[in-house]
Amino acid sequence: MSGFAFRSGSSDGAARLGWFTTPHGTIETPAFMPVGTHASVRGLAMHEVREAGAQMVLANAYHLYLRPGDEMVRALGGLHAFSRWDGPMLTDSGGYQVFSLARYRKVSEAGVEFRNKLDGSLHQYTPERVMQIERNIGADVIMQLDELIEGGSDHRASRKAMERSLRWLERCRVEFDRLTREGRAPVHAYSAPDGSLRLCTHPEHDDLQAPPQALFPIVQGGTYADLRTASINGILQSGDWQGIAVGGLSVGEAKSAMYDTFDTCAPLLPMDKPRYLMGVGFPDDLLEAVSRGMDLFDCVAPTRMGRHGTVFTPDGKVQVQKSSYRTDRRPLTETCPCPACTHYDRAYLRHLMVTEEPLGPRLLALHNITFLISLMKQARQQLGAGGYASWSRDWLSRYRAGTKRPIAADGST
Amino acid sequence: MSGFAFRSGSSDGAARLGWFTTPHGTIETPAFMPVGTHASVRGLAMHEVREAGAQMVLANAYHLYLRPGDEMVRALGGLHAFSRWDGPMLTDSGGYQVFSLARYRKVSEAGVEFRNKLDGSLHQYTPERVMQIERNIGADVIMQLDELIEGGSDHRASRKAMERSLRWLERCRVEFDRLTREGRAPVHAYSAPDGSLRLCTHPEHDDLQAPPQALFPIVQGGTYADLRTASINGILQSGDWQGIAVGGLSVGEAKSAMYDTFDTCAPLLPMDKPRYLMGVGFPDDLLEAVSRGMDLFDCVAPTRMGRHGTVFTPDGKVQVQKSSYRTDRRPLTETCPCPACTHYDRAYLRHLMVTEEPLGPRLLALHNITFLISLMKQARQQLGAGGYASWSRDWLSRYRAGTKRPIAADGST
Repeated sequence: MSGFAFRSGSSDGAARLGWFTTPHGTIETPAFMPVGTHASVRGLAMHEVREAGAQMVLANAYHLYLRPGDEMVRALGGLHAFSRWDGPMLTDSGGYQVFSLARYRKVSEAGVEFRNKLDGSLHQYTPERVMQIERNIGADVIMQLDELIEGGSDHRASRKAMERSLRWLERCRVEFDRLTREGRAPVHAYSAPDGSLRLCTHPEHDDLQAPPQALFPIVQGGTYADLRTASINGILQSGDWQGIAVGGLSVGEAKSAMYDTFDTCAPLLPMDKPRYLMGVGFPDDLLEAVSRGMDLFDCVAPTRMGRHGTVFTPDGKVQVQKSSYRTDRRPLTETCPCPACTHYDRAYLRHLMVTEEPLGPRLLALHNITFLISLMKQARQQLGAGGYASWSRDWLSRYRAGTKRPIAADGST
Repeated sequence: MSGFAFRSGSSDGAARLGWFTTPHGTIETPAFMPVGTHASVRGLAMHEVREAGAQMVLANAYHLYLRPGDEMVRALGGLHAFSRWDGPMLTDSGGYQVFSLARYRKVSEAGVEFRNKLDGSLHQYTPERVMQIERNIGADVIMQLDELIEGGSDHRASRKAMERSLRWLERCRVEFDRLTREGRAPVHAYSAPDGSLRLCTHPEHDDLQAPPQALFPIVQGGTYADLRTASINGILQSGDWQGIAVGGLSVGEAKSAMYDTFDTCAPLLPMDKPRYLMGVGFPDDLLEAVSRGMDLFDCVAPTRMGRHGTVFTPDGKVQVQKSSYRTDRRPLTETCPCPACTHYDRAYLRHLMVTEEPLGPRLLALHNITFLISLMKQARQQLGAGGYASWSRDWLSRYRAGTKRPIAADGST
């Protein structure tokens, strides 16, 4: 698989430094990846995401398949050109969205049939189709289609979904390899207006050959250790992957059950592959996961919470609209390098949120992603310097002392 | 009046170059001023507004009086410190908002009584109160309270409102001078959290003395030449102003009637004062007004239209959501220096608007204000080089040829 490599460096227990190389650059791990669902990190320009220290950005194959269409993204030059992010990118398959957002869905061994909420149209989301979509979109790392079930499902349902996800992984792999070998299907001949650049829809543009990409499998099995173990064994037997994701967590289970699942998975995962923990994006969860050997993280919570005025601080989460901020001329945090913390004060940020000025959600979303990216940078520095364990213990202790009320596993406040 | 001056330079017919000096800097005119209603230009950071070339920014006294409160803005260091705009600023009195937005209002010779839409509370908006509010907020230029009436009102109603506005101007002037002489009232003693900066609410902070400010009168009289003339005469007899505004236009009248009103006013206005045309912000109207001797402009339309996907181009207004943009990889315009035009293409901007990604409205609002600011910069260059008349004729001809359908005076499309 050209262009991909991983090597790990200093470690502290299960926690480790790593370097994940992709065709668009190398990510130093552990790292938090901001989510740009529609090829835009909500409200932010990519130069701000870069200045926040992001190394890799996500997009969502389901959303881009619906709008503007995976073939259209390819015709417009692929995801990197389209989104203006020239670093490493990853697409989630959108399995989560198909299972949770579609108006109507029918799951079978073949895949998922769903109706588009936007126009009622009927779509087939099969492992093969998802590979075609993700290879059209063109991210560096693409995710398998897996079967998602409700958090808290019983052992039997969890086992069935995990086993089906393994069968779907095999079909993804076969189709992924076929596309590498035979090239992608030609794209519908869109017409471009006179004077515009030609679209990349012709064989002479070398468009049929898919870019180098890595397919990541997803470990499933709920909070059942035996199922997680079986899932990892199945994944390792079915291919030589460039990285492995752990999914189906932070869906309502107790935090301790989530952390136990990291403990179950980490020793079974190969040391020489990056481990991507999907959809987990709270500061304490990130540190707990790093301590248990996870390398890459993503979550929409930092941007979504920021839009509603909840921000991460070293002393826990804070609601910016709170009344004591009305006269508080201090920065949001003393240490965060983001514009919200370096150029504004709490009184003004509160004012922006209270008056529903869109600069407010924008600044707070940027703060939250900067906060997580910086936290992972500190973790890397501590891993390099040999002080990770005590630093992360102190960090968590201060953060948890400041967070007055319990946080639900889904981050709702 | 310390810190204010105006001098004019090259001219071409009634059009002229000018330099308006305020305590926070000098504005080269003609110039377009972006509107930051709540001390934030909707969706944009002040560094972006500055990079767009803005020289002076507006805020709205009515909105800031309600939230966070004029005394609170003063306690937090005044409008410049609060908004992070260190250049010249202007507050509109908010007369327009009182007349159009308040849930309940009763107009009398004393002023306007209104109920706050947000909480139902009752407020007295008198000329004296408005001066106290605007001197608390602390912009460089502050506007008188005037009586606003519906566009298309008859001669009698227009005359009555114009005459009342002159009487209110006199009351504004008296209160403005009293505040200069006697200082501002002490501010309510807000408590600031431990560790925060002290608030500016104590005499020892030299807070009672109002900053140097200029009060601008507003010419009214609808589209009636005799009333506009009488309004200007009344204004000139009542004081020695640092600048004069022309209000009550772009409220539904025909464009020709608006342009005729510029022609009526310009020869009567002193040459040695800046003329601020309120609430007019379409490219063609700006050039027509510059040609008739106007210097300063503001309007919320560029940001509001941008939020809904309508952008200015040299070939007229364009709706970014239009289907031909789906495959159009050209920049929005070839010449505009804004990030939307220099970093993105039409296909991606359309995608952002269609998927309701907040980066879309943000980029398009920034484009529209950049477009108007740049247009005024070109006008200044042409005035300096002696080519204004033919340049503006050509510019308008291209712009109007591109705008297929008639534009309503209020800019609705």
